[in-house]
Amino acid sequence: MEYARSACSADPQERESAVAERGAGMAADIAEQPEGYARLLEGEHARAIADIAARVAERRPRHVVFVGRGTSDHAALYGAYLTEIRLGIPVGLASPSTVTLYGARPDLSDALVVGVSQSGGSPDLTEVLKVARETGALTLAITNNPGSVLATTAELSLDVAAGHERAVAATKTYTAELLALLLLVEGIRGGDGTPPAEERAALAELPALAEQALADRSADDLAQRYRFASRMVTTGRGYAYPTARETALKLMETSYLPALAFSGADLLHGPLAMVSGDTPVIAVATPGRGGAAMGPVLTALRERGADLVLVGAHDELPAGTPPSSVLPVHTAGIREELHPILEILPLQRLALRLSLERGENPDAPRGLRKVTETW
Amino acid sequence: MEYARSACSADPQERESAVAERGAGMAADIAEQPEGYARLLEGEHARAIADIAARVAERRPRHVVFVGRGTSDHAALYGAYLTEIRLGIPVGLASPSTVTLYGARPDLSDALVVGVSQSGGSPDLTEVLKVARETGALTLAITNNPGSVLATTAELSLDVAAGHERAVAATKTYTAELLALLLLVEGIRGGDGTPPAEERAALAELPALAEQALADRSADDLAQRYRFASRMVTTGRGYAYPTARETALKLMETSYLPALAFSGADLLHGPLAMVSGDTPVIAVATPGRGGAAMGPVLTALRERGADLVLVGAHDELPAGTPPSSVLPVHTAGIREELHPILEILPLQRLALRLSLERGENPDAPRGLRKVTETW
Repeated sequence: MEYARSACSADPQERESAVAERGAGMAADIAEQPEGYARLLEGEHARAIADIAARVAERRPRHVVFVGRGTSDHAALYGAYLTEIRLGIPVGLASPSTVTLYGARPDLSDALVVGVSQSGGSPDLTEVLKVARETGALTLAITNNPGSVLATTAELSLDVAAGHERAVAATKTYTAELLALLLLVEGIRGGDGTPPAEERAALAELPALAEQALADRSADDLAQRYRFASRMVTTGRGYAYPTARETALKLMETSYLPALAFSGADLLHGPLAMVSGDTPVIAVATPGRGGAAMGPVLTALRERGADLVLVGAHDELPAGTPPSSVLPVHTAGIREELHPILEILPLQRLALRLSLERGENPDAPRGLRKVTETW
Repeated sequence: MEYARSACSADPQERESAVAERGAGMAADIAEQPEGYARLLEGEHARAIADIAARVAERRPRHVVFVGRGTSDHAALYGAYLTEIRLGIPVGLASPSTVTLYGARPDLSDALVVGVSQSGGSPDLTEVLKVARETGALTLAITNNPGSVLATTAELSLDVAAGHERAVAATKTYTAELLALLLLVEGIRGGDGTPPAEERAALAELPALAEQALADRSADDLAQRYRFASRMVTTGRGYAYPTARETALKLMETSYLPALAFSGADLLHGPLAMVSGDTPVIAVATPGRGGAAMGPVLTALRERGADLVLVGAHDELPAGTPPSSVLPVHTAGIREELHPILEILPLQRLALRLSLERGENPDAPRGLRKVTETW
């Protein structure tokens, strides 16, 4: 309570120092991300991913099944978009419960089954990969723990090498999973396991662009603006939809807000009715086909009186719908499929700062542990 | 405002009559469901579904892709569980945007692609089915409008025959989609298009069990209890997860509540932190593997102080976690995969009554139209 009171001081300096301890872990995790990107983009980790990509390409799976829970499920969703759009291979997101609760044994003999989990410790994902491997699928674990049960159960294991995560809420392991999935898919597309040359140049820009996104402090003002919000909605389309989902989860975990994520299209199919003037809506609309398709969604949100935050570059926002606020992310003309690796960064900061403003401790959310075991 | 005031009268008789006009459409839609079940279970509609099931069985798809939006997406999710568990065929839930926004052309030549839409009027689903048909997939539209563009685009068209729906919020078209999917999957399993004999007996009980579920009025008390709730959480596992999703959507559409749906397992992976003493949680836990697996979830929710509503039969609730309230659904020993067709019924009534208690008009939610066109 001492913390909570001084965190509400009007003096920004005083507030900053009072909250220095709470949230220090999550702040450090967030800050390390550009370094983590650089680590995956070259050296042993890049070579390990290229090797896996080459082996997958050789096996030519007819379809791909992703499984994940929580944050890693959002990374899996990103992987699903990448696989279907960049590789033209149909994708499914599996529900582990069909296998673990009901004993389903789907014939996965021409599938690649990918389990995504930061800890690699979820018994249900392990069971799905075990069953998939038994039925002849090519199995791949993507984890931050190459010694985990999930990693050793799968035929192939990819280490996202994000290092120890201090806070319970996942940040740097999420973006490491995203980048690993991107390198994997582009490596498969390249044929020999390495991304095509034109893609490599854009990838090399990611650490610097991430530094730039993290240097911005607009999220701090937003955290004060939404100090007393009682709900929040996040939305995006296409590649931005996983970002919307992950943002909502971070807000729930760290700030205990009911945060609802919708694809822009699904929002119009019903949930829009719930939006009104007291509803902050965070719309991810970086330039590209996903951002462009948000046009009618933004118009509808404006009509319902939503307080609209747009995530994107100031000079490239969709026309005709001036937002209440902007969380700037400069994507510098790089391809849309790279954006999720950048656009989540200011949103992680928003979750951190909002939690501090509300007097909570984002490093150790109530009721949660780092490894969640579900069956 | 006149309506809203008299709807708050303490006299139940007076309240009932004051709100008779608002919500009359949704109430009539809800009441017609047992009749709709009976219609699909025999006669021309049953024969039409059997014919489609036989044609699908003949083609032996290697995997199945479902697409839907809003309520129909929840029916599609139910279809996905059925297909994977009862048929052992791997399933994916497709995001239309990979095709419509990004021009993905996944090779679906050995897939069955199923579009689910009450109106059959969503351009994005139609585009997905068109592309799937062009790439050699077997395509099936499940709609309440056999003359719709979606129905005529697909190679096979299944009419759920629910009749005209009065309210914007879908109720009877949802359960008709569920039952049609069940008949389809059991028909495929039967080989000749008709469900196996042991299944037909259980199916025949559905209209009477639905009447029984609808006769119960416990939802009316709950609607008063949650008159001032500022958020709501719904949860379930396995077959009950689509019910949790659909309940949340109904609450958002009719009562403008931020309602968050989670599979029981996903709830433990983060969102649990957001639950506290002011959070009503509706847990669907009818007897079966899904209900049994809710045990640890209910314990965790109790620890967080949630106000817990259990959907299920009084004498068959999971042990050790006395709920605050029960929404009774008697499933009379029928197999778990039939439960979703019953357990949504009192929850539809809850959405209707809560909307009326809050002075809203559930027949015409703000900001929504019956047919939502998205691309």
